[in-house]
Amino acid sequence: MSERTRFDLSPDDIPTAWLNLLPVMAQAGIAPLPPLHPGTKEPVTPDLLAPLFAEALIMQEVSTDEWIDVPGEVIDAYRLWRPTPLHRATRLERALDTPARIYFKYEGTSPAGSHKPNTAVAQAFYNKRSGVKRISTETGAGQWGSSLAMAASMFGLECLVFMVKASFEQKPYRRIFMETFGAEVRPSPTSTTEAGKKVLEADPDSTGSLGIAISEAIEVAATNEDTHYSIGSCLNHVLLHQSVVGLEAKRQMELAEDVPDVVVGCVGGGSNYGGLAYPFMAGRLRGETPSMRFLATEPAACPTLTKGRFAYDFGDTAQLTPLLPMYTLGHDFVPAPVHAGGLRYHGDAPSLSLLVREGHMEAAAYSQNEVFEAAVLFAKSQGIVPAPESAHAIRGAVNEAIAAREEGAERVILIGLSGHGHFDMQAYDDYLNDRLPEVEFDPEQEAAALARVPDVPIG
Amino acid sequence: MSERTRFDLSPDDIPTAWLNLLPVMAQAGIAPLPPLHPGTKEPVTPDLLAPLFAEALIMQEVSTDEWIDVPGEVIDAYRLWRPTPLHRATRLERALDTPARIYFKYEGTSPAGSHKPNTAVAQAFYNKRSGVKRISTETGAGQWGSSLAMAASMFGLECLVFMVKASFEQKPYRRIFMETFGAEVRPSPTSTTEAGKKVLEADPDSTGSLGIAISEAIEVAATNEDTHYSIGSCLNHVLLHQSVVGLEAKRQMELAEDVPDVVVGCVGGGSNYGGLAYPFMAGRLRGETPSMRFLATEPAACPTLTKGRFAYDFGDTAQLTPLLPMYTLGHDFVPAPVHAGGLRYHGDAPSLSLLVREGHMEAAAYSQNEVFEAAVLFAKSQGIVPAPESAHAIRGAVNEAIAAREEGAERVILIGLSGHGHFDMQAYDDYLNDRLPEVEFDPEQEAAALARVPDVPIG
Repeated sequence: MSERTRFDLSPDDIPTAWLNLLPVMAQAGIAPLPPLHPGTKEPVTPDLLAPLFAEALIMQEVSTDEWIDVPGEVIDAYRLWRPTPLHRATRLERALDTPARIYFKYEGTSPAGSHKPNTAVAQAFYNKRSGVKRISTETGAGQWGSSLAMAASMFGLECLVFMVKASFEQKPYRRIFMETFGAEVRPSPTSTTEAGKKVLEADPDSTGSLGIAISEAIEVAATNEDTHYSIGSCLNHVLLHQSVVGLEAKRQMELAEDVPDVVVGCVGGGSNYGGLAYPFMAGRLRGETPSMRFLATEPAACPTLTKGRFAYDFGDTAQLTPLLPMYTLGHDFVPAPVHAGGLRYHGDAPSLSLLVREGHMEAAAYSQNEVFEAAVLFAKSQGIVPAPESAHAIRGAVNEAIAAREEGAERVILIGLSGHGHFDMQAYDDYLNDRLPEVEFDPEQEAAALARVPDVPIG
Repeated sequence: MSERTRFDLSPDDIPTAWLNLLPVMAQAGIAPLPPLHPGTKEPVTPDLLAPLFAEALIMQEVSTDEWIDVPGEVIDAYRLWRPTPLHRATRLERALDTPARIYFKYEGTSPAGSHKPNTAVAQAFYNKRSGVKRISTETGAGQWGSSLAMAASMFGLECLVFMVKASFEQKPYRRIFMETFGAEVRPSPTSTTEAGKKVLEADPDSTGSLGIAISEAIEVAATNEDTHYSIGSCLNHVLLHQSVVGLEAKRQMELAEDVPDVVVGCVGGGSNYGGLAYPFMAGRLRGETPSMRFLATEPAACPTLTKGRFAYDFGDTAQLTPLLPMYTLGHDFVPAPVHAGGLRYHGDAPSLSLLVREGHMEAAAYSQNEVFEAAVLFAKSQGIVPAPESAHAIRGAVNEAIAAREEGAERVILIGLSGHGHFDMQAYDDYLNDRLPEVEFDPEQEAAALARVPDVPIG
């Protein structure tokens, strides 16, 4: 029979512990920088986070344990879609006429169509156990809100989603998806929170932003004892939960009897790419695979890692969050409306930012049209229409494969294919009909936004 | 750890031969009735089908072999999403407080989100090998056209899709999905075929029907040497290819150490349900599992199996196809526009019709609101938003589970979950907001349509 192109694990192989990269980073001399209280500029202590998060999640956020057990109830939920498949993209290789071997880990088979449920079910489980009745969150493109709505429904929690108003209006299907699971979805900014009211007073026609929606969701949790806040990316505990992706992929690459030369993913807040990359990064940091490369990709319209500043900044527009040490374009930077809504965030995960800064991870930014060119090539050769976000990773991988061809060298490329594009077909229509604008990055807007980043020394 | 709820096969377990139920039916005394030439009323000979289909597919259509090898190239393509998972729906069982054990075989993890690619890649492969440049087909809701467009792209064929105009306008995402794979999509009726012109002359504002679109796609294949026609359901070779679903499910039920008491699926043309059911039906026909029940479900608005006539009828409106022996509502019956577009077909697979007629298969029809009630219950408990078509099977299974509870008896229920509903969220919005009309079946329209069924004796 023909060569193997799919490497599957059995349901019994779902990881039973998450990998926490922070202690591995610390052992490699990359000490994590603490989040700071915006008033005192002192490191945030766990008790300050208690109104927002379940205690177990706060403990995970600051844990120095390398492995943290996955509760049985969460493994049960994971079984709905995990383990996810790892494929070799032989048809794409042939289309590119490359000596590179291209693999992709596909998270689009989850019920929400992306990697987001990996942390959503964990957060819903811990919050249910903590005794709250409801979780609040924000969503931009809708992937995160969909996943949390699904998870909340599975564990019997209420769910309140502040959906960026522009998406609320443009993506009714995502809203309906959340409502099908019983979630309450509000178009943000709303007049139901102080943060929202303030925005609406200044601009009654505001179409919202992820930063504003975060502020609203946090405010509801901070002012309601029965409600916790839930976040879909950036924080340590979120990337921790996503490590199931990379832990599976590592075993699957062993089944394929191959080792990646480069691991490529797309970065919005960093949870998808961190989830895939960190189990491999542990090998690099420990000196086992010192030459393995890591490529984080992002939209040219929101080039946080490639053009941002490494600084302490707020995670949200209303300046409610602690100050996080990360690459940032400024907490009130508003990216142009590119189709990869999940990558339109001004900041990035602190751990991932630190890895880029320390030279363990490369970053590259691509324009919309080059991203969709790669996406259509992937669809035609591999049969899967990727999410616009994931298509950034494909663009990066295609560039690597072309470089390998030009060098006449073998190269093993692992792509994080974080989701399918079934909810994003309008973007493909725009691309196929030459209607996709080449969004320019506005350095002046960034300079203005960066001027409003707090002036706090960073290690 | 907790009980097992997912039963996976490895990529090496993809079936290497398809199961052809027809010889098993014949051995059980259920002789298949031949399709007839509409002019001579004589059985159709393979040479008459040659302008439309690749020879290998015609041979499969009339084969008396019980097993037919799956080509290596097709297995390669299957590996993109096969084997598909089989789950036990323990959360749904708890929500229903039933002693029944409910399993579902989930085909929504395929690149097109349904079972349709199982036959699409096989048909694309054989057509490519036969030397034609292009395949033409029709699509209603868009699942079939999407799958064939994907398959054609994988095997380097051009693809022409006649999409029912009403869907073309209401479901732009499905059109774009096909175009992303390079397919040409035309809103049917078109003025590019004689069949389309005739319809437009009578009614310039016609929004089309599946029957009209079939006529157009067949005409293009019949009048162009470089083009073959491809069909997504009903015919023997299509159900043959879909048998991978049931062959996998049978092995997975063995892993679960359980045997279904009842196998439930939804029927439009019959390919999804036939694919799941036939490998189990073979056991019933051979007397190995004589009491295993089979439940075919359909919309009350298009109740082919429950209220149709068993007769020789055309597969299309323009009367271009051979006469097929099947349950039919009349070849020009136009079902009310229910959301389960894939189930709006006037006929059914001849083999499946025969099994219903001979009492080996039961049938039940449900209204839209009871179907979506079950769909939302399933989504909330199991995390997967089902396609409106698949939700009919869920309704049937829920009824079986409630009956088991009332009887206080165990019952093992296997559901064919043929696809996800990510492209069908408008239907959920309508249901959640009490806007889903209870479409009435119109017996007078059926009587009028049945009066136009050819008067041909049937065995």
